[in-house]
Amino acid sequence: MKEPLMKLYIGNRNYSSWSMRPSVLIRQTGIPCEEVVVRFDSFEPGSAFKRAIAELSPTGKVPVLEAEVDGARLLVWDTLAIAEFLAERFPERRLWPERAAARARARSVAAEMHSGFQALRACFPMNIEASLPDVGARLLAERGDAAADLERVRRLWRDCLSASGGPFLFGDFGIADAFFAPVVMRARTYALPLDDDCRAYAQRVTNAPGVAAWIELALAEKDFLAFEEPYRSGPA
Amino acid sequence: MKEPLMKLYIGNRNYSSWSMRPSVLIRQTGIPCEEVVVRFDSFEPGSAFKRAIAELSPTGKVPVLEAEVDGARLLVWDTLAIAEFLAERFPERRLWPERAAARARARSVAAEMHSGFQALRACFPMNIEASLPDVGARLLAERGDAAADLERVRRLWRDCLSASGGPFLFGDFGIADAFFAPVVMRARTYALPLDDDCRAYAQRVTNAPGVAAWIELALAEKDFLAFEEPYRSGPA
Ligand SMILES: N[C@@H](CCC(=O)N[C@@H](CS)C(=O)NCC(=O)O)C(=O)O
Ligand SMILES: N[C@@H](CCC(=O)N[C@@H](CS)C(=O)NCC(=O)O)C(=O)O
Repeated sequence: MKEPLMKLYIGNRNYSSWSMRPSVLIRQTGIPCEEVVVRFDSFEPGSAFKRAIAELSPTGKVPVLEAEVDGARLLVWDTLAIAEFLAERFPERRLWPERAAARARARSVAAEMHSGFQALRACFPMNIEASLPDVGARLLAERGDAAADLERVRRLWRDCLSASGGPFLFGDFGIADAFFAPVVMRARTYALPLDDDCRAYAQRVTNAPGVAAWIELALAEKDFLAFEEPYRSGPA
Repeated sequence: MKEPLMKLYIGNRNYSSWSMRPSVLIRQTGIPCEEVVVRFDSFEPGSAFKRAIAELSPTGKVPVLEAEVDGARLLVWDTLAIAEFLAERFPERRLWPERAAARARARSVAAEMHSGFQALRACFPMNIEASLPDVGARLLAERGDAAADLERVRRLWRDCLSASGGPFLFGDFGIADAFFAPVVMRARTYALPLDDDCRAYAQRVTNAPGVAAWIELALAEKDFLAFEEPYRSGPA
């Protein structure tokens, strides 16, 4: 008997930074998985999104991964748990670095991203189709906490790239890169300043086939959601 | 040649909720590790804390674990990465549940804690020696987001306990319990309302020897730090 295909439930690709992480990881590393979009109409109690997701996740959030384990249906929520689940289930894809020390560092940067960078996230919500360089320049000048977050991202990327030799943070594309892919999208949208090494890394992430496919689908979406748009009054 | 003992660098035990997690995990499961307190004088650039921690962690935060891997010194920062590192290094301690499905769920709740519950954290900072039931009652009434976070904690605990049968979230004490131990401390300090099952779980966590030792050391600290005290003007 063949195992049913896993399913990853995600939100709008233009906006959902959390959904992007496992999706690009899965696509980039060729893990077999179906993707199901649960459109964000709103996050209010009673919204179609909240009603659909209530059946899938105890947090009422995307992404959620549906898999079969020991013959039973399993729902894994939260991106870092999804990543660890996939790393265990598909060891041959090497989602984490092989060597213990590099693996511990990759987990440190992924977990740091997972719990931190609140100011960067709040100021620069992911919005792949938008181009908002003026917002970027203004907020970086006004918000010292967002500027400090960006400085930490740059240092983190440089440290990882110089230790691994690239092309990705720990050599091949893995979980750490997937976790920073939304930051790469934000750097594009808000024209956040990057030094040469970081810009080249951001370009390699953007060009990675799994990421490029996400961007293409996000651009095709054309679903302007006012509640996700602090800076635009309508589609470009 | 004997491997040097690992070292866990932590902050003030009364206040540092992030430090508490790996510390109680290590102590409760008997992992050999030395603990080094880096006192919080302040989090300002130039503070003694920031200068000491700059040598240890690229984030300038505690906790940090120092270990030897392949003959080289390794620094692991961020609690979830520390937990995964320990789980890999000490498989016989079963820090995660043994069965894949339970392990995925344990990782989901730990990662959910790691990145979420912002309102609960902001309203009810850990402060083990304090007793602030009035603050708890007032903020739960005023702050719907904090009340929703607490409701999610209660549901999460109940779901895990009823699936595992207890006594801890996934049977034996593990990473998921260590991640919620600071929430147990907050529930005590702010007298947050818990139903019977949750209260009994919170009591078992409080009584677990690794947690009880942390509490005892926190109470002995007597180091009132005004910048960690939104609600008290001096020690009790
Ligand atoms: N820590 C979670 C965060 C997930 C999250 O916040 N997802 C957003 C979409 S990008 C969501 O579903 N929000 C709905 C809501 O906040 O009500 C994870 O890693 O999956
Ligand atoms: N995500 C980090 C958070 C660590 C953290 O925020 N630690 C606090 C002490 S509880 C700290 O060192 N703060 C110093 C600062 O914010 O400057 C982890 O899991 O270790």
